[in-house]
Order: sequence, then structure tokens, then C-alpha cells
Amino acid sequence: MAMASIRPRAVRALGTQLSRLVLPRYTFVAVRHYGVAPPLPANTILDPLTGELTTPPDIQPSRLEIVKNENPKSLPDPKSLVFGHTFTDHMLTIPWSSKSGWGQPKIQPYGPFSLQPSATVLHYAQTLFEGMKAYRDQNGKVTLFRPDMNMKRMNTSAQRLALPTFNGDALLELIKTLVKIDRHWIPQLPGYSLYVRPTMMGTQAALGVSAPNEALLFVICSPVGPYYAGGFKPVALHASTEWVRAFPGGTGGFKLGANYAPGVVPQLEVAKQGFAQNLWLHGPEHYLTEVGTMNLFVVFRKPDGTIELTTPPLDGMILPGVTRDSVVTLARGHASKSLPLTGLPEKFEINERAVTMPEVKAAAENGSLVEMFGAGTAAIICPVNKIGYLGEDVPVPTGDDDAGLGPVARVMLNEISGRQLGTIPSDWSVIVSEE
Amino acid sequence: MAMASIRPRAVRALGTQLSRLVLPRYTFVAVRHYGVAPPLPANTILDPLTGELTTPPDIQPSRLEIVKNENPKSLPDPKSLVFGHTFTDHMLTIPWSSKSGWGQPKIQPYGPFSLQPSATVLHYAQTLFEGMKAYRDQNGKVTLFRPDMNMKRMNTSAQRLALPTFNGDALLELIKTLVKIDRHWIPQLPGYSLYVRPTMMGTQAALGVSAPNEALLFVICSPVGPYYAGGFKPVALHASTEWVRAFPGGTGGFKLGANYAPGVVPQLEVAKQGFAQNLWLHGPEHYLTEVGTMNLFVVFRKPDGTIELTTPPLDGMILPGVTRDSVVTLARGHASKSLPLTGLPEKFEINERAVTMPEVKAAAENGSLVEMFGAGTAAIICPVNKIGYLGEDVPVPTGDDDAGLGPVARVMLNEISGRQLGTIPSDWSVIVSEE
Repeated sequence: MAMASIRPRAVRALGTQLSRLVLPRYTFVAVRHYGVAPPLPANTILDPLTGELTTPPDIQPSRLEIVKNENPKSLPDPKSLVFGHTFTDHMLTIPWSSKSGWGQPKIQPYGPFSLQPSATVLHYAQTLFEGMKAYRDQNGKVTLFRPDMNMKRMNTSAQRLALPTFNGDALLELIKTLVKIDRHWIPQLPGYSLYVRPTMMGTQAALGVSAPNEALLFVICSPVGPYYAGGFKPVALHASTEWVRAFPGGTGGFKLGANYAPGVVPQLEVAKQGFAQNLWLHGPEHYLTEVGTMNLFVVFRKPDGTIELTTPPLDGMILPGVTRDSVVTLARGHASKSLPLTGLPEKFEINERAVTMPEVKAAAENGSLVEMFGAGTAAIICPVNKIGYLGEDVPVPTGDDDAGLGPVARVMLNEISGRQLGTIPSDWSVIVSEE
Repeated sequence: MAMASIRPRAVRALGTQLSRLVLPRYTFVAVRHYGVAPPLPANTILDPLTGELTTPPDIQPSRLEIVKNENPKSLPDPKSLVFGHTFTDHMLTIPWSSKSGWGQPKIQPYGPFSLQPSATVLHYAQTLFEGMKAYRDQNGKVTLFRPDMNMKRMNTSAQRLALPTFNGDALLELIKTLVKIDRHWIPQLPGYSLYVRPTMMGTQAALGVSAPNEALLFVICSPVGPYYAGGFKPVALHASTEWVRAFPGGTGGFKLGANYAPGVVPQLEVAKQGFAQNLWLHGPEHYLTEVGTMNLFVVFRKPDGTIELTTPPLDGMILPGVTRDSVVTLARGHASKSLPLTGLPEKFEINERAVTMPEVKAAAENGSLVEMFGAGTAAIICPVNKIGYLGEDVPVPTGDDDAGLGPVARVMLNEISGRQLGTIPSDWSVIVSEE
């Protein structure tokens, strides 16, 4: 097993050198510049057996072992697919331990895990995940959409939970291999894709609440149909003043399992009242944060006719969504004229700023509310037609067609899905397989 | 399988009767009083196969199957025990599904679970747990301390996560059987006990964020030593203004896995600064909420000499701890003179009320802060000697002896541990086994 290691003698020698050098301050600066004391990698540990400073290995795609599924399932009728119920023939697993770092990656037949009853994930929610989609584009190529964003976010989530971080490029390479092996599972129908779910969980078999000394990273894939089985249609939201999703100093800005289970009961409650999803508010000002499990956009018309696209800022309570970032990036390109988008007006602004429900309600009343939409990997864009707020219904304008997409939502949906499906060339689309 | 069922015909007949009866309002009231339409149990469902209204079965201790472990482990040296690392020979499992309710309870050899990679607990933190202790009392009897409180809280947690609820007495009967079978694992040393960990998790093999249609309740047991290996000693807390544990409208008042993993990084951060635990604050007023994974008590001396024991109220952000409730109940008994406690002054008050860090700091400065302590199942009582707050150290008075227990903490520890160990007779102690 390859390990970068520095012998204690070298460290001691370095220490002596440094203690001589640091006395006059300018010398110390010189040391840093000349690189005599390169910073050790963050995950450097003192090996308790050898007494050496070692860096446990990162994820190593070169060590991948592939065990082919000898009993592949027959492909399901795409029309029968329910989100996240059907899985492909293979999965990727990579074990980690604090002693030996990331172990051998394995692509193997999809099947159950054996977990100790004391595994920390089962007790303390030591788990995080990502959601990505693999598309078959118009040229038959299989692609992933901005997967580097998922790798970065997954590492951020891992840090928040004291789970191990990793080289995102290495994991992405392995995910590509997995998707390539199971690419025939991507249904050959418009709007269908392969949902890819990387997950990392603490598996230490002990009940103390602490950073786990063992973890498992795994990736499973599920063929999925379009989010809107009957085509796009706008949804009614319930602005929740009773339930809260996130708060400053909490975990709302990270994609952790812990953010999801508590949302089920609030979702069931609003469904009973005839609403599709919760609109999560924050504070007595009723700041908008997110909608269900999507990011949120609100479009206003300013007195001078400028169209203002807004979304709550990434203040630690908002999940940094890949679709959110794509909408913001496209909007910035248009606003700055560096990448004008057909269909958006010339007088256009994008602002990541706080928006309150009273502001939305006032805008709905005075006609300056243009539209609202959710944005996420599952739906891409989800138009809103109504918000239940403090016992009243606040009407939200929608587009004229059945889809109900407003002027900005429609452009964003076209631009993003075009990049996903290869009709609009873009470096956001990363090729997994040429056929 | 026993199922309470009402035939559709009966329901239709009832409907007809009701529709005739409801017209004059007084008749409807009479119907309710005569019990013609008894309320259906909350978990009544329409069986999709038979078309009958059925109530899926609750936990049934009579169906218990016991599979003895034929290869029992040798008992560990008690001195070597680390909290939650060693488990007894058996565990209790009870499966649940939305279709057939609670299934057959089984006590079987402790061993790994087989879980689908898509099981919701692994992705969305659909898990909750309890912590209880079985003691060997001074007469050799094995007892549990107020286990009814744990059963109630576990049901409350289940409701919060849309996991199934159950008959607490039935689960307790099964837990008693498990503890009885493994009672020889309770180390015969003062301060040692058997930590009992009931857990319930969503096991539905699908990625939608929703109420799971399958769950598993399991109970594992771990022999544990005293919380303070070197005897009681006071701890230093860090009043966290950066990290937040809970918030109004969130899940802080429930014992969910989701509340625990996010606390690991804050705990590592304060440990680096030399503090034992976080003191979790809330809001710009810096209200005290909890400490680490314990409830918190603050004792003040009022101008007239009255000793005031305070603890934050159960406002949805505070875990309703069993030890917390025991301290409050004992204190109320003393304050009302119905059950005076030796060692507590006559002029004594117990108030569940908001306390802020500025109030604690001012009291420390003017000499009216008597003591502070945490309370929980693991430590019972944990004295505090210092709070790091906004870059300053706020000193907290402690008792004169090594244990550092102040006047109220010492009485509470004696009263609670006396009831746990049978030196003080009490109905809080529930017998599991006579020997």
C-alpha cells in the first residue's frame, strides 16, 4: 500500500532547523518561500505502530476491482418506473478507516450491506449524500452534468460531519466507470435519465458520539422517468411558519441525511392541506429559504421595467444546489451581456439577496411579482402558482401554456436541459461514454 | 395473525345510520354518547386486498421467539470497558411494515443486519433511539430506572419522524426479557451497569423522502463502567455562539439521530480549545439550552437567601431527559415540603425558566451563582467549574471535595443513584429479575 511518509528523524531535523531560523522574523518568511517546510497534508497522522508520520492513501482508481454481475436483471418497462425504487446491476463501494485511509474501490453486483447493529450511521445520522444524473444525449453519448460540483459539495458535507474527505477527481473517475458499465439502464426515452446516488456513512461499530474510525462510501444508480409524469405543471406551496428546515449555525447548507428525515412530517401535513410542498421560512421576518428539497427563485418587475431574478444567498441555511448555481451563472452571463440568452429581456438583473414573504405578498398585490420557481436536480425547474401564507392564498403568476413556466423559468429550463442533453454544447456536460 | 377488523358492510350500514341521525344536531350527540360509532384506532387502514378496515397488529410479546446464542462470548474485564464498544450475546429485533404492522419479536444472537443500499436510514437519517440503564441493585436484583419514560419518549420521536408508534408496555416487557437473558453481563462492580439502546430505523428500500413503509426496531445492550473513570470531577464548558444544536420548529426536543452527528465537529473544536463540552446557546440573548448531550441546571442564591434551582423549559428545543425530569420532580417534592430532601435548604425553589449567559455571568460576578451541573443517563450528574464565553472564562463555583459537586448536585446525585441502586426504595426502580 503506497503511503507518503516522513521519518521522525527528518521531522526532528526540520524542527531544529526551524527553531534556529524563526528567531529573526524575516528569515522565517524566507523559509516559507523557499519551501524548506512544506505544509503536511491535512490528513497526516502519526502511525501508532511505526512512529512515522504518514498520509493514509486517498481514493485510488488504479486499484479498482470489478466483479461483474453474472445475473443481470431484465430492464424494467420505463413507464413503470417510480423514483428511486429500481436499481441497476452494479454498485461502487470504497471502504475507509482512520488507520489505513481509503481502501480498495470495488464495482460489484448491487446487493445488501452487512452492518453491525452499533454502526454509528444507524444511531446518529452519520451520513451524507449527493444526487446526480447521467443523460443519454442527442448524439447517443452518455454524460454527467457538472459532476465536479457534486464532488466538491460531498467533500464539504464530509468535513461538516467529521467524515473523511477525498480526491473528487478520483471518485468521479470511478463513478464514470460505474455509469459506463450500467449505461444500458438509461431508458431511451425523452426526459429519462439515470439517477446516481453517492453516499458516505460512518460505520464504526461503537455507540460513542464521535468522529467515526470507519466509513463506507458507496454509489448506486436508479433509472428514473421525468419528474412530471404528466408534463410540467405549476405547484402550490405552503409557507411554513410552524416548521423550520434550517437555522444559522446549523447544517442547512450541507447535503446531510440529518436535513431530510425531519422534513417528512411537515410534508405530510401540507399534503393534507392540498399543497405540493413546504416553502421553508426563517425568522420573524419570514425570509424565504428553500422549497421542499429544492432551491427557490423569485422574479420581480422593478418600477423601471427591469426584470429582477432573485434567490436567497448562500448564508449557511441554503443548500448550494447545482441547478441553483447553473441558473445564477446563466443569469449573470445574460445580465453582464457576456452570454446573452434568447428570451430574456435586456433590462435584467440577478441578485442573490434576502426576500421575505411580506415582500412577495406585496408584489403579488401590486402586480410586480412576475413568477416563482424551484430548482433542483430532480425537477430541474418547478413553477409555482400559489402560496398558502398565514391562512391566505397568495396567487403567483404563471406562464400561459399548460406547463405554467414563466418567462425566466422557461428560458432557464431550455438552457439547462439543452446543456444536459447536448443540444447546446457546453463544458458543463462531461462525457462518460461515447456510445 | 390477530387483526381487529370491521367489515365494509358494517361500515356502510353505520354510514347510513349516521346520515339519518346527523340531521338534528342533538341526535348526533346522542349517537356519540351511546357509542354507536366508536372512534377507530389511529392506525386503522383500508386493506387493499380484502377491502376491509383493519388495524395492523401492535407489538405482541406473546409472539416472542428466542434463539439462544450457542457461542456466548467470554465476559470482558470490566476495567477494560470503553463506552459502547462491547455488546452482550443477544439482541431484540421487531420488524414493522405498513401492510402488516409489527411483526414477530425475536431475541437472537447479537450480529450484523443485512440492509439494502437504498434503505432510507442510510440516506435520510430516519432513525431515533433511547438510552437506558439496567442496574444490579444492592439486593442483587436487576432493575431498570423509569423505563416507562423512555417508552413514551421513543413513541414521541417516532411520530416526529413518521415512523410507526407502538405499545410501550409491550416493548418494555420484551426489553425486560432481553436484559434478564443477558443479566450476567452487568459487571459486579460499583458504578457499573448495562447500557440498553433501543433504536428504530426506516428500512424502506427506496430513495424517495417519505414516511417509510418498512422499519426495524432493535435493542442492543452494552456493559459500561462509571462515566467518570477517575471519579467525579467538574468540567469546563464552551458557550457556543458559533454552532447551534436546536431551534424553534426543529427537532431538538426529540431523541433523533439527526440531532447527534452534527454535534461531532463542534465537540472536536471545543476539545482543541481545552473544553470538555459545548454549552449550546440560543438566540441573540444567548439563552442556555443544553450541554453536550445532557440537560443543564443552574443554581442561584436570591437576595433573601432562597436557593433557586433552574433549568431551561421544555420549549421544543430541549430534550426531555429522564434524569432532568427526576431532578425536577425531586426538587418539586422538596420545595412543596411533600418529600423533603436531607441536605437541601428550607428556602428552596425550582423553576423551569429561561436563563441567559449574561445572567449567569452577572451572577458569577456578584456571588449569587451557587453551581451548575449537567444531568443525563450516562453521567447522572456532571458538575461544571468554568464556562468559556465570548473569549472570557466565567468561573462557576464547585463543591470543596474532589468531586466538585455543589450542594444541590450532591443531594440530587445521592437521591437518584440511591433509587437506581435500591438503597432508597422507589417506584422509579422497575424490577427485571429477582436475582
